[in-house]
Amino acid sequence: MYAVIMAGGSGTRFWPLSREKMPKQLLKIGSDDTLIQLTVERVLPLVKREHVFIVTNHGLAVDIGTQLISRFGGSWDRNFILEPEAKNTAPALALSALHLNRIDPDGIMVVLSADHAIRNVEAFRTCVTTAAKAAERDYLVTLGIKPNRPETGYGYIKAGEPCPEAGLDGVSRVERFVEKPDLQTAQGYLQSGQYYWNSGMFVWKVRTFLKEIERHMPSLHEGLEQVRKSIGSGTETEAVRSMFAQLQPVSVDYGIMEKTDRAAVVPADIGWSDVGSWTALEEVTDKDAAGNIITGNVIDIDSTDSVIYADKRLVATIGLKDTIVVDTPDATLVCSRDRAQDVKKVVDELKKRKAEERLTHRTVHRPWGNYTILEEGDRYKIKRLVVIPGSKLSHQLHHHRSEHWVVVSGTARVTNGDKEYDVHTNESTYIPMSTKHRLENPGKVPLQIIEVQNGEYLEEDDIVRFDDDYKRHEKAKSPLPELPK
Amino acid sequence: MYAVIMAGGSGTRFWPLSREKMPKQLLKIGSDDTLIQLTVERVLPLVKREHVFIVTNHGLAVDIGTQLISRFGGSWDRNFILEPEAKNTAPALALSALHLNRIDPDGIMVVLSADHAIRNVEAFRTCVTTAAKAAERDYLVTLGIKPNRPETGYGYIKAGEPCPEAGLDGVSRVERFVEKPDLQTAQGYLQSGQYYWNSGMFVWKVRTFLKEIERHMPSLHEGLEQVRKSIGSGTETEAVRSMFAQLQPVSVDYGIMEKTDRAAVVPADIGWSDVGSWTALEEVTDKDAAGNIITGNVIDIDSTDSVIYADKRLVATIGLKDTIVVDTPDATLVCSRDRAQDVKKVVDELKKRKAEERLTHRTVHRPWGNYTILEEGDRYKIKRLVVIPGSKLSHQLHHHRSEHWVVVSGTARVTNGDKEYDVHTNESTYIPMSTKHRLENPGKVPLQIIEVQNGEYLEEDDIVRFDDDYKRHEKAKSPLPELPK
Repeated sequence: MYAVIMAGGSGTRFWPLSREKMPKQLLKIGSDDTLIQLTVERVLPLVKREHVFIVTNHGLAVDIGTQLISRFGGSWDRNFILEPEAKNTAPALALSALHLNRIDPDGIMVVLSADHAIRNVEAFRTCVTTAAKAAERDYLVTLGIKPNRPETGYGYIKAGEPCPEAGLDGVSRVERFVEKPDLQTAQGYLQSGQYYWNSGMFVWKVRTFLKEIERHMPSLHEGLEQVRKSIGSGTETEAVRSMFAQLQPVSVDYGIMEKTDRAAVVPADIGWSDVGSWTALEEVTDKDAAGNIITGNVIDIDSTDSVIYADKRLVATIGLKDTIVVDTPDATLVCSRDRAQDVKKVVDELKKRKAEERLTHRTVHRPWGNYTILEEGDRYKIKRLVVIPGSKLSHQLHHHRSEHWVVVSGTARVTNGDKEYDVHTNESTYIPMSTKHRLENPGKVPLQIIEVQNGEYLEEDDIVRFDDDYKRHEKAKSPLPELPK
Repeated sequence: MYAVIMAGGSGTRFWPLSREKMPKQLLKIGSDDTLIQLTVERVLPLVKREHVFIVTNHGLAVDIGTQLISRFGGSWDRNFILEPEAKNTAPALALSALHLNRIDPDGIMVVLSADHAIRNVEAFRTCVTTAAKAAERDYLVTLGIKPNRPETGYGYIKAGEPCPEAGLDGVSRVERFVEKPDLQTAQGYLQSGQYYWNSGMFVWKVRTFLKEIERHMPSLHEGLEQVRKSIGSGTETEAVRSMFAQLQPVSVDYGIMEKTDRAAVVPADIGWSDVGSWTALEEVTDKDAAGNIITGNVIDIDSTDSVIYADKRLVATIGLKDTIVVDTPDATLVCSRDRAQDVKKVVDELKKRKAEERLTHRTVHRPWGNYTILEEGDRYKIKRLVVIPGSKLSHQLHHHRSEHWVVVSGTARVTNGDKEYDVHTNESTYIPMSTKHRLENPGKVPLQIIEVQNGEYLEEDDIVRFDDDYKRHEKAKSPLPELPK
């Protein structure tokens, strides 16, 4: 059994906690682990680690890899399948199936989302096991979530006849997929007991899925063939890029599931949530007696039925009702509960303004630790860097800025041009412009440095990397990982 | 004519914009000038600058002085009367009257609040002029604000018979002062046309006021006598301290105005607001078409009847109604409009927690410029300092911290132990612990420095001052200013 975890999403509806470069799957929501960590953990008892594949883009792969290493250890380099651009789920899953086909054409491919929450993990695993049995019989199986409310935000699946084959108790053929309904229709669906939410989790045999692509999505099939031929020739990166460039974005639901005559559904009562907006937080977190979910440095007086999310900054709330307050170091959202879907409009506005608050947080995590932007001014920028013991940043230079480093805790090993020396707590050093330099933490405690940058251009892309433990100086990786040994 | 501006208040109801050390009178509310600047400006055509006295405490006097210098130039050293502790208005005004009595016993004393807003400045000046005529006839005159709503948050004055003396058209005797009414009573007051809000603005002759103190507040009179005898003996600071220590807090309304038979009222239709809470903002600022008052870096979608106050940090609001959002660098308030008075409860809670967010802002203004705390961590603190051209900080040392200074713009003249040298943009220097040092901006553009402090104790009070342009190293100033020449 193989897991393919879709992790390319750049969800905007959890802004300002989520950002384009820190999407929901990288966040801790209702747990001490991030959603991607939880997704991998959930599937590991069913699927060997080397059979877990994460489909995402190059930028997110580094961050996801860092989270998986910190949670599960080891290297996850061979677990990534890289989309050159986002073209919805069908192309990404087709590329994944092509890779799995090289390993095991009869393998069962379990498709999961990286940014959903599932409270009942045991029930989830049972559903996947049941679905896998149907997949063996060449069904394309979807996990259908038992609705507990007349939700108008999801598509529904209508279950039909039970699958006739022996050993497939509880699996039904799909009668039809239906679009997001209006409230009255949704109430009818809820009462009928025949309708399930389309969760976007699928289980099928690799070979079956590829055949259905050939039948229903000929241009996608043609693209896959070109990629298949390129493998081993050194041109596969270009072939995948070219395939994605030519394709229209299509979901696997629309492209395959609604067209195949082999769709089946396994009802799943697993405490699922797509965590699709701030109001969905109550599906993954318990409320207090007043109906609030309150996190962080909050002083609340008499609020009810509200979500108040703070971090270290103080948030004081008085007498709120049905209100969402989300505070982050550089942006605060205050939103009426029934308008949570409109957070997207704020993100659209930020996009228009080219505002940084859409893209990144003040604190950015890196494989070697993290940095926080403390202040930006005219010709200067101030950062706090935290370097994990034993880690080092890339050997680099900047054309447009010099850097003052003041060590406030730990010991820094600094390469500065031709010299290498240690800088201790309460000492400082200076890196002139265009000088090759490297920062390392040779010690046993985290190294904290205050970096004052001076120059005419202070963006992250003024960096030339010469050597990097995390291979960020190399050209784009191959979209398909090496085959497991 | 003399102005006595009461500026000792530490209003909590404008938190988080106001702080204990940055009370409302120091804030810009609905104007580009601060409330204290506006209060002084408003009275200057009536009162000579050297006859304007600010009654406040020692800590606030520096900040108020800085604001007055920056707005009106020159020195304001001789304009301050310092309360050793807050004992409500009667003791503070008695002390002020004692001082004025030395200059001009027959002078007219105009008592104003430093933190009120008045939209119609001309009408205000006319009222004061009218009131001064009555004060000449030994009335104790209060400016009674014409109510425009059945406000339950203020005390009221009931006007009685017109003053019979010639030239006092429009001035009435006060029939009685009444406490804050309930809503029904307030509606009656509003309809009757005989009631006015008690604004806390008074006009009286110095001699008259002192006589009334002698008659109605004998212990206050006794305290004043002790202070009077001490003047010139070098013990006046101690005498004032002792006087205040022995007194109960009493308002001049309760102690004098409600008891005197010489109270009169001048009706004032002057666009007055005590700016008593965030909801009062609409009395000093225009609302937009949706009934909102929106300031700063805000993206709003469809909010109505709300106050949204941001600075540089981004605040996004969606679909709010009757909500107050106030964002500052270290604290955010979100409050239902009808609960604006409960901001005080948040401040009380902060007091319990000994939280810094009650006392000061991240940016603190100083006579030489300002500093902003960018980050505080274990054994380190990072500040940005801005020094005005030509200004210098005090000559000082710290017992518990060393300081790294990186100049990010301008040029610094640094005294470091026995050495003096200049540090230019993109250069740095290091001040070891217990080393006497001084920072000066000898240039023509603002000097910006990033200061990284290292040490075991990083509070502001670890400072030994040896010399200071702003005399902050001297013992507490005399509570009474030198007499004008």
